[in-house]
Formats: sequence, structure tokens, C-alpha cells
Amino acid sequence: MGATDTPTSGSRTPYHHEDDPTGCKLNYHEAEALVESDDPEHPANLICELCREFYKLGWVTGTGGGISIKQGNLVFLAPSGVQKERIKPEHIFVLPYPQSAVPRPGSKRDMIRVPKKTGLKESACTPLFWNAFTMRNAGACIHTHSQHAVLLTLLLGKKADAFRISHQEMIKGVRIGGSGKTLRFFDTLTVPIIENTADEEDLTDGMAEAMAKYPDAAAILVRRHGVYVWGNTWEQAKTQAECLDYLFEIGCKMLQAGLPLVGDD
Amino acid sequence: MGATDTPTSGSRTPYHHEDDPTGCKLNYHEAEALVESDDPEHPANLICELCREFYKLGWVTGTGGGISIKQGNLVFLAPSGVQKERIKPEHIFVLPYPQSAVPRPGSKRDMIRVPKKTGLKESACTPLFWNAFTMRNAGACIHTHSQHAVLLTLLLGKKADAFRISHQEMIKGVRIGGSGKTLRFFDTLTVPIIENTADEEDLTDGMAEAMAKYPDAAAILVRRHGVYVWGNTWEQAKTQAECLDYLFEIGCKMLQAGLPLVGDD
Amino acid sequence: MGATDTPTSGSRTPYHHEDDPTGCKLNYHEAEALVESDDPEHPANLICELCREFYKLGWVTGTGGGISIKQGNLVFLAPSGVQKERIKPEHIFVLPYPQSAVPRPGSKRDMIRVPKKTGLKESACTPLFWNAFTMRNAGACIHTHSQHAVLLTLLLGKKADAFRISHQEMIKGVRIGGSGKTLRFFDTLTVPIIENTADEEDLTDGMAEAMAKYPDAAAILVRRHGVYVWGNTWEQAKTQAECLDYLFEIGCKMLQAGLPLVGDD
Amino acid sequence: MGATDTPTSGSRTPYHHEDDPTGCKLNYHEAEALVESDDPEHPANLICELCREFYKLGWVTGTGGGISIKQGNLVFLAPSGVQKERIKPEHIFVLPYPQSAVPRPGSKRDMIRVPKKTGLKESACTPLFWNAFTMRNAGACIHTHSQHAVLLTLLLGKKADAFRISHQEMIKGVRIGGSGKTLRFFDTLTVPIIENTADEEDLTDGMAEAMAKYPDAAAILVRRHGVYVWGNTWEQAKTQAECLDYLFEIGCKMLQAGLPLVGDD
Repeated sequence: MGATDTPTSGSRTPYHHEDDPTGCKLNYHEAEALVESDDPEHPANLICELCREFYKLGWVTGTGGGISIKQGNLVFLAPSGVQKERIKPEHIFVLPYPQSAVPRPGSKRDMIRVPKKTGLKESACTPLFWNAFTMRNAGACIHTHSQHAVLLTLLLGKKADAFRISHQEMIKGVRIGGSGKTLRFFDTLTVPIIENTADEEDLTDGMAEAMAKYPDAAAILVRRHGVYVWGNTWEQAKTQAECLDYLFEIGCKMLQAGLPLVGDD
Repeated sequence: MGATDTPTSGSRTPYHHEDDPTGCKLNYHEAEALVESDDPEHPANLICELCREFYKLGWVTGTGGGISIKQGNLVFLAPSGVQKERIKPEHIFVLPYPQSAVPRPGSKRDMIRVPKKTGLKESACTPLFWNAFTMRNAGACIHTHSQHAVLLTLLLGKKADAFRISHQEMIKGVRIGGSGKTLRFFDTLTVPIIENTADEEDLTDGMAEAMAKYPDAAAILVRRHGVYVWGNTWEQAKTQAECLDYLFEIGCKMLQAGLPLVGDD
Repeated sequence: MGATDTPTSGSRTPYHHEDDPTGCKLNYHEAEALVESDDPEHPANLICELCREFYKLGWVTGTGGGISIKQGNLVFLAPSGVQKERIKPEHIFVLPYPQSAVPRPGSKRDMIRVPKKTGLKESACTPLFWNAFTMRNAGACIHTHSQHAVLLTLLLGKKADAFRISHQEMIKGVRIGGSGKTLRFFDTLTVPIIENTADEEDLTDGMAEAMAKYPDAAAILVRRHGVYVWGNTWEQAKTQAECLDYLFEIGCKMLQAGLPLVGDD
Repeated sequence: MGATDTPTSGSRTPYHHEDDPTGCKLNYHEAEALVESDDPEHPANLICELCREFYKLGWVTGTGGGISIKQGNLVFLAPSGVQKERIKPEHIFVLPYPQSAVPRPGSKRDMIRVPKKTGLKESACTPLFWNAFTMRNAGACIHTHSQHAVLLTLLLGKKADAFRISHQEMIKGVRIGGSGKTLRFFDTLTVPIIENTADEEDLTDGMAEAMAKYPDAAAILVRRHGVYVWGNTWEQAKTQAECLDYLFEIGCKMLQAGLPLVGDD
């Protein structure tokens, strides 16, 4: 994306909202610069790299899942419905944070940077990521379709409103509420399970309710769908996503072997 | 393959069929140029890259499986019986599309570009890929020997004429007929199962019949063999192949755990 | 880390302990040079490379696990609580060996080189690695959170004080005591299991006791946590970690299939 | 390994056996040149690359397993007891073929090229690879410790003298005797199982007997150990190793699900 590229349609016009809560008044080139960096730790680069890693773990196959990173008053997001292991920085959306309302995908409301490639929409997970940003002050939120998460919600059965496990070393990598102190080995980790909806966006309220009901939860499982995990930083979000996925996997194996998940008997 | 290479046998002669339905009248160097490109998204490059990726997923081990891409009036195909993770653009066959009849492997009928390396035959899957091109107007077709697909056809039993599953988020990545609108979460995905035959080519009619009987199906499972998946583009074919493979895998796990595949109980 | 970098805080001051048992009296730049090498087999480089490999094997996800290498009178260690697949040589701690007491994490006692990046603490596994160095004269010690190890301790049940298996070819890759002659095919491999504790550091005594009680053991399993494996060299430690992980995995499968672990019936 | 390197001990002296059956009378530099090539398809390079690939498949962890390639009157072999994913061309042994007797590891008999790195012994599998070369005229032989192979021999039980499976597409990738025509879909594939011995070398006669008794077998399973697979070329050996490993894996799954391996019911 050369410096001489110019926008050719309204959809590429950068953010100039009058009552801009973040104070972003960027012109086109300033908006493009937000996703152009040689620093591998820049959010636009990290999202691409991490999505490739998550693909290898089976977390984001079939275009599902992804990660959003909040840095200062900017939120970086992947597009919807694209192969997550193949996205490039130029495909990244940038939104201001905070916003007066939860951003709905496709509303084009309060966008700072929209990819030039036509037809791209921001991730359908946007309002769900937003829950983590507004309710937990998260710096990053990861969504996976890991089979361990989905199978666990099936093995636990329709009446289970949460996954609970204790006495596992990997519990110690999970923080109270996703952002507080880490749990201890003998603490019972609780991850609420909510029911899936036809449209991803419609999970927003259910996720928010579960987060309010379980303030100590570091993640929300969605039955027959996957999991949302967040953290203060992308590193903490990734660490917790790995620890939780490990616990989902061993939880499945323990259920299949008839072993109790809570306690050390 | 340098520009000074010259054909040394009749088998390398490019396509000059008199009643050429595609109007392709290429000389040798024009035919070679069809598979030489620096663009990683060129079909000849993509097939090689995707086969390496599919190998890592266990889809094309032991030389089985592969992908064919149709671009305009050209179909790009890998050779038969070679290690799919090691093919190079110079090994790719190019056929014109459409043709007056389904091309049979080894017939050398209507070939635009035949690899110079002697002994290579076009994939035995050619007529099956053709079904997807002619009956669904697909832009790409993927064939895998995924163990999830094969085990599923075994676990479902000999009397099952299809795999049916509902209430899975990954269903939403599959399109009606492979090319239409995406299915919804609570829709029942149906993938017909046909019986395997001694020769891959002899699957052609059975696959076509199943596609006619199940116009909404996005793929055809072949018992004790694998699956054929297609899409409007290679991206859609790959996305659907990943979503379906995910569903085959979780379907196996659900059957093994005694969980119903359809409904949300 | 350029040669002109200078320490800016006391925490970066290199080791100058008066009663230094190793005789290390290095200035800042000499200490930094201990982790700077173009040789891929240098311990600081090896730890980073091996942690990336172990991550792919699922041994060190979620910041858990790792490897420590002893070379001469120096011990190289990764930091605690960081993503192990992303550590760089500049993050490596260097400690003198031997020391008058087991080094406790965070004590900053007897440190030769502390990473400049603030907030890094040496691995909580430090005193456990030390057990392998002092009690077995090991040259390297690996700690994994492999699910095969954890599931095995669960499937064997709370009363099992050890994992025992015989008549497996991979047993031949394990050495008596981790450092002696290799076991034979029909020997019974015994890996003691100790109970996990709330803090990793508190495992130190339990691990030492098990090592004293089972002098022929090449590793110690920690229930609901993972495994510690050591060897004369990093190569032997890695080989034994792989052989043992293989045996833990097939041990789980055999238990799940109702097959006896010892004997060849 | 520079051209100016000179041998410094008798163990590096190239092959000068008086009654050399292959006519190889190479000086030191000629012998070294046998493993130095820029061609990735040169046997010394291929063995290293394929071992890295096999490591990812879990076939050669813990230094076990490997591949030997015969090219003309030379046999290329990896060393014994080293990490197979890390070997380099300079570690490769070269032996003449044929020899008047099966070469025994460590005998240093009839060696054309011995690696300069001291302490390396040729693979303990040497006489077993030799069986494939002499009895089937194979061009390559692969040995894996795949858990699918080992678990299969355990699930089939001590009385099973062979693994038999039919009606699987992947059977079509296996050749009669490992080198003849490919099997058909509905043929019954038979892979003999022999009992393991304390020393790998002592498997030689048992493997030879099974190969004589089952002339159509393309591989020999060794209970509680792994499998030996061969082919006319390294490509055919690899293809067959992949097809067989696939069949071992799905065979295990079918046995665990109570499905019959032979027939299509």
C-alpha cells in the first residue's frame, strides 16, 4: 500500500465524526499509517501473526474466531468472513475507543480506518470484543472455535450453566475476572456457558449478562460455538486462552474417563 | 523451466484440437506461461501452496486428495499419484473449460498444457472435480482423505445415506449447494454419502447422481474414502472444506459419546 | 542489546558476591556476553529454540514449563510467567553453579546475569531444576505440562505413587537415574508421582525426596501438573523427555483400552 | 566440512577393503564428496529433510526410527542414537551394496564413508534395512515408532500374527510386496507382526522370516516397537509409509469402536 494511494470511494473515507469522543481527526494517510509498521509487536502486525498461530491450533479454521487488540484509544480488528491465517495488516479495521454505544458490524459508525479492499466488513465479533473492553477494561480479546471448548459444552450437557474445574496446575495461569490476581491451584475455576444464537451479534447481551453475573470469570463459553477470552494485554489474553483451552481439553478427557472435575479425588 | 526449453516429445505438444470449444490455440511457450507466475495467488502457485497446507492437516497424505481451480476457461489440476506436498507449478496440468464431455484421466483429450516431466498423468479425480464445475459452476473443488470424513462414514454405518448435523456454529460457514447463501446455526446440514468404487473415475456417476438428488449439498462424502467439497472460489472451497472437516470431526466425537447430531438436546 | 548499553539500576548489577563459590567476578559487559553468541548450540540460544519446539509439542503452553541448561559452572534459565515460545537470549538468567543453598526465585541471590527488561523473575522452577543438577549431576532439566503426563497421573488414580511400564521399545531411550546406562526393552520403567503443591517452589522437597527414594528414576511426575526430566546433556534430557512423553501417551491409551502396562500379555 | 579437512584417526579412513565387492576404492576426499551436494534430492540431503518431516509426524521422536536410501551401489544411513530431526549430511554413513553378508552395526566392515564426528555409530536398524534391500530389491526403507503402529499391535492382541484390513481407499497406495502393483480397494492388506527383541539387531532374522513367509507384504510390524516399510524408491517408500500409518491409525479407531477391519459391513 504505497504512500501515493488515494481513496476512491466514500467507504474509504477516514473517521471525521463531529462528536468524536476520542479526538481522532485523521486524514486518509494518517489513518493508513495506523496499520503500517515495521514493529512486529504493532497491533496490526500482531493480529495477523497471532491469527496464523491460532490457525495452527485449530482455533480459527473456516474463517471463524480471531483477536482484537485495544491500544490507547484505538481498537484494532480483523475483517469478517475471511481466512484468518491469511489476513494482512492492510485488512485491519481501526475503531476509536470508547464509543457512546456498542459498535454494530456494518454500521460504519465511528470508524477511523476501513481497509481499501472492497467488500470487507469488520468482524461480527466486534460487539462481543467490546464487552471485554468496556466491562473488564481488557486490552485484548480472543475468540476461538476450539473443538475442546465446543465438545466440553456438549459433554457437560444442556443444563450446565458453567464449566468448573479445580486442582489443575494450569488454573494458575488464569486471572480472576481475566485481569486480576491469578487463581491458585486448588481454586475452582468457573467459566460460564451461554446458549448460542443464530447471529453472532445477538450474543452480545447474553455475554454481557454472564459477565455481570460472574464477575470473577475470565472467559465466556458459548455452547456449540466456542469461547471468548480476554486479558489486560494481548500477552495475558493469549496466555489465558492457552491455559483455558488446555483445561477444556483435559476436562473433556476427564469427563470421558468418568473422572470428577472438581476436587482432587 | 527456462524459456529456452523446447518440447522433445509429442506428449508435450500443447493443445491444438481442431474443434477447440475454448478457442485456445496456444503454442508451446504460451502454454508453459500458463503455469509460470510470480503471483502467489496464481492457480498454479496456489495449488502447490494449498496442497502443502492440506498435507499438514492430514488431508492429502500418501499422494491422495488435492485441489483443482477453474479460472475463466482454464482448469488447473495436479498430477495423479505424486506427493501432493511436493508438487511444483511446472507439474500442473491445464485443461480447457467447458469440454464437450467429462475428461477422463489419461485420455490426453483437450489438454492445453501437459507437464514436461514424463510419466505424469492428470489426477484421477479429474472427472469428479468436473462434476463440481459443470453441475454447480464451482470455481474450485477440494478432495480430501481426512480420517474424520472416513471414520464418520464408518461410525454412521452402512445404511446411512447422509451425514446430518444441526446447531453448530461452524454450519454457518457452509453454503447451500456449496455456492449459495450460508446455512444458519439451527439449519440441518446434509452431506450425502456414496459408496466407494474400485477405481476413482467410476465414482463420477455416483457423485453426479447424489449432487442431483441433493441440490443443496455443499459436498459429497465417499464411504471408506474421503470427501469432495467445492465453492464459487478457492477461498470459499477451502473455507467450506475446513468447516465441514470440523463438523466431521466433532460429529465423530459426538457419536462416540452417544450425543445426538441433530437438535440441541 | 548494543555494546554501549549500560546498566541503569541496581537490579542489573552483575554478580559480585564476596564469597562467590564459582569465582565469577564479571563486570556488566562480561555478564551480557554470556548470553550473546552466534552459535545456535549456545545455551542461551538453545533454550529459546527448544522452547519454541516444546511449544509445538504442547509442553509449554500458557507460559508453563521450560528447560534449564548447566554448562560448566553456569546455569542458564528462562524467566517466569512469559510466553516460552517467544523468549529471546536477552531474557535469559545466568546463575553460578554450585551454590551454598538451593536458589529461591526472586531472592536475587548469587545472580551472574539478570535480563535488562524490568519485571522479569527467574523461572519458579529454578529450585526444581537445581535438584536435578545437585542430586543427579544433570547437565539439563526439562519441565513440561504435557497433557499426556497430567492425564496419566489422573487415570492411574490418587493411590498410585509411580507410573510403571515395560516391554516398550521407547523404554530403551531412557537411562537409569536419567544419566546411567539405558534401560532394556523388558525392564520395568518406574517414574515416581508426587502430589502437586500450591506454589511450584514448594515442590522442591517432595521432588528431592522422590529422587532419593527412587535413585534409578529418570524423571518425576507431578500429579495434576506435569513432569521433570533431566539428563547428562541437553540432548539426553530432550531424548528422554520425548521417550517418556511417548510412554505417558501410550500408557494413557493402554489404560483407556484396559491393557496392562507391565508385562507383554 | 571444508575441502582442506584431513582425516585424523583411523576411524575416518575411507573404505579400502581388498575384496571390495562394489569396486569402491575411494580416497578420503572422494568419500566425503559422497555426502556433499547442493541437490536437495541427493540421498544425504533427503535423509536429513525426511527425518525432519517424520519427526513432525511423531515417527522418529526420541532418536528412534529413520530412513535409509540405496542409490546404485551405495547405501546412505543415519547414525544411531542421535536426534533424527537434527542430523546433517555430514553425519551420514555410506556403505557399499551389495555385501557378502548383512552388515552388523559397529563392525565397521565395508564402510565407504564414516562421519568425522567421533562417537557416531551407524543406525542399529542397518541389518533390518538390509533385509528390504536384499529380499525386495528396495531403493529405500523407512522405520517408524509411530504410536498408531504400536497401539495397533497391542489392540490386536498377542495372538495376532498380522494386521489385516480391506475396503479402504488408502489401501490403493500400497504395493504388493512393497514394490509390485498397487493393491485394489477391496483387497485385504496383510502386514505381518513379529515379536520385538531386546536388541534391534536381533530382529533381523525374524523380519527376514516374515518377509519370506509373506512375500506380498509391503511392511513388517514389530509388536510394542514400530514398523519397517520399503519401496522401489524413496518416494514409494514414503507414500507407502504414509498410507500404512493412515491405515494403522484408522484401524485402531475401528477396533476401539468395535468395527470389523475386513469387509465392508
